Amino acid sequence: MGDSTATVSGGDNNSSERNTAEEVSRIVEQSKELQESAATLISRNTQEEASLRQRALALDSTIKRLRSFIVSSVKKGNLDPKDADKLVEELSRASYTLSEGDAAAFLPSKSYGRFLKMFLGPINVHATRKDVQLKVKEEYNNFRDRTAYLFLFFPSLLLLLRSFVWEGCFPALPVQMYQAWLLFLYTGLALRENILRVNGSDIRPWWIYHHYCAMLMALISLTWEIERQPDCSQKQKGIQLFLKWAIMQGVAMLLQNRYQRQRLYTRIALGKARRMDVVWGETAGVEGQIWLLYPILFILQAFEAYVGLLLLKTAVVGVVSEWQVVACGILLIIMAVGNFTNTVKTLVSKSRVKAKMKKNKSKNDLLQGSL
Amino acid sequence: MGDSTATVSGGDNNSSERNTAEEVSRIVEQSKELQESAATLISRNTQEEASLRQRALALDSTIKRLRSFIVSSVKKGNLDPKDADKLVEELSRASYTLSEGDAAAFLPSKSYGRFLKMFLGPINVHATRKDVQLKVKEEYNNFRDRTAYLFLFFPSLLLLLRSFVWEGCFPALPVQMYQAWLLFLYTGLALRENILRVNGSDIRPWWIYHHYCAMLMALISLTWEIERQPDCSQKQKGIQLFLKWAIMQGVAMLLQNRYQRQRLYTRIALGKARRMDVVWGETAGVEGQIWLLYPILFILQAFEAYVGLLLLKTAVVGVVSEWQVVACGILLIIMAVGNFTNTVKTLVSKSRVKAKMKKNKSKNDLLQGSL
Repeated sequence: MGDSTATVSGGDNNSSERNTAEEVSRIVEQSKELQESAATLISRNTQEEASLRQRALALDSTIKRLRSFIVSSVKKGNLDPKDADKLVEELSRASYTLSEGDAAAFLPSKSYGRFLKMFLGPINVHATRKDVQLKVKEEYNNFRDRTAYLFLFFPSLLLLLRSFVWEGCFPALPVQMYQAWLLFLYTGLALRENILRVNGSDIRPWWIYHHYCAMLMALISLTWEIERQPDCSQKQKGIQLFLKWAIMQGVAMLLQNRYQRQRLYTRIALGKARRMDVVWGETAGVEGQIWLLYPILFILQAFEAYVGLLLLKTAVVGVVSEWQVVACGILLIIMAVGNFTNTVKTLVSKSRVKAKMKKNKSKNDLLQGSL
Repeated sequence: MGDSTATVSGGDNNSSERNTAEEVSRIVEQSKELQESAATLISRNTQEEASLRQRALALDSTIKRLRSFIVSSVKKGNLDPKDADKLVEELSRASYTLSEGDAAAFLPSKSYGRFLKMFLGPINVHATRKDVQLKVKEEYNNFRDRTAYLFLFFPSLLLLLRSFVWEGCFPALPVQMYQAWLLFLYTGLALRENILRVNGSDIRPWWIYHHYCAMLMALISLTWEIERQPDCSQKQKGIQLFLKWAIMQGVAMLLQNRYQRQRLYTRIALGKARRMDVVWGETAGVEGQIWLLYPILFILQAFEAYVGLLLLKTAVVGVVSEWQVVACGILLIIMAVGNFTNTVKTLVSKSRVKAKMKKNKSKNDLLQGSL
């Protein structure tokens, strides 16, 4: 076979050359065609998307205008309240179609905020397709799940090693590695939650601010000198308390994630929720779970504030006099108060929704009874 | 006028109610239509994009196949080398059309890498439109410019304050704030460069790894205790050296940015470059600038390695015995060696390109002479 290539005739060579040349010019032609198709598709899309964007925006503002017009008409006595209720409900349905369907991709997305711009520059992170948005959300949930286990594991390990290996004194390196992990984790969570917000999630802004505070605290705690012998057990009291709080946080995160998912799936099934809802700290609608989760959340928040106060106390008494102790104490108290306020707000809005649903249900029962 | 609303007749009320009801049902209709248009556009796009993606991929692999076929044909003696050169050039042009035009959006983008996935989750950061990609690149350049000035400013300020206000001893907080800024900066740069890579930039992987090393160093330096009196000036020698190196780095960055831009604009004008090229540390083609920039880069790298060695020495001699000193020393040396190797590689590939261009130019001169 080796010989046949060597002894190939000049004529064959020419024809193979011609074939190759033809194929090359066909390729050149195809690449031009492809370039043109791509350019056409992109420019047509840009136009059509702009027009859809305009229509969505106009419709959105008309709905808002009509809604406030109806409300003011009722007040002025120009409109029967019952009829108005029906009209407002229809408008809500239109608004829901607009904001939950495929058209939502063409509504102006929430502003990106400085945080995303700072880290990523002006890149677009708004997904047009609903399935992509849901994939992002799903991955965020998985990330939180993985995180929660590590949140339990790392501080438990540190506390165990302290008791059984390190003879009551933390060495600096493992604690600092844990703090670096916290910094990385909170940065990742803050970035992902900002991205979810751009993609239409209704996450309460506080939960994102909360992660900014946590980032700052992790950063500060990295510069915090880990005291050694003598008296390490007294000087390291703050770290110990912090780690215990972190373990409780891990438990609460695991519970929250479970309820959050259940709630999300239930609400998707009921068609009531925007599917991009994320509410860190807000939870399921199932009664029994609320009696378990909310007490744990409140205990956690109280403990957070307690750790913060203890840190401030150690600074005032003078056991440890570094500014980091004061800063971390203040941050913990801010986070505890913010978390508490937002959990209560969530609870209140939830019971309002429930009361409304009950009212509607009894109305429906009445209607069914009269039929 | 207030009275007229109050005394509006029942008939008017009814007609206004009818008007409102009509408008509401028109809105409901419009929202359904908009939803349908959006769904149609999105599903049609998904299909057309998939087909373009397939065509682009097929064409890309055909070009590669043909190119290697031509090379092997020349080796086997089935193809005249001159003809082969011409065919390969035509293929290169087709490949250029494919990778630089609008069709590039449909070629599979470079893999995202763990770094982006870790921080952002599975969100798409690949821009389809060329103008958006260029905006991202432009903003990255501006970010680097702003950064370079701060890179000059912060360490200069710290060194000046040390001499004139702090009496030869750095206090911990300002230095740590500077280190935190470095950590934030390198994280941002690494994220942005990864995003540029996804968008088709040819940035050398080393410059991204370099920023990972720099992130790690900033993180470690945060845990590094700033020694106070007595003997602070000796113990803080490492910090002082590091700040001086940072000032030089700032100067080099400013020069690089200028040359980089000039080179990019020149190359865009010549139509030679992929427009997403970013090469941190690689620079302009203008002879005179190379004689200024490259020496500065090499001096900087030597100084970087020197600071690294000094840090190691202080650890060995026992002035400062913390592991952070050793780790930062090793990281600085790794970065210096990597930077040096990659700058040399860039220089070599640049002189090769230049040699080739000269060859082509003399060929063209010959042709023009013969005309």
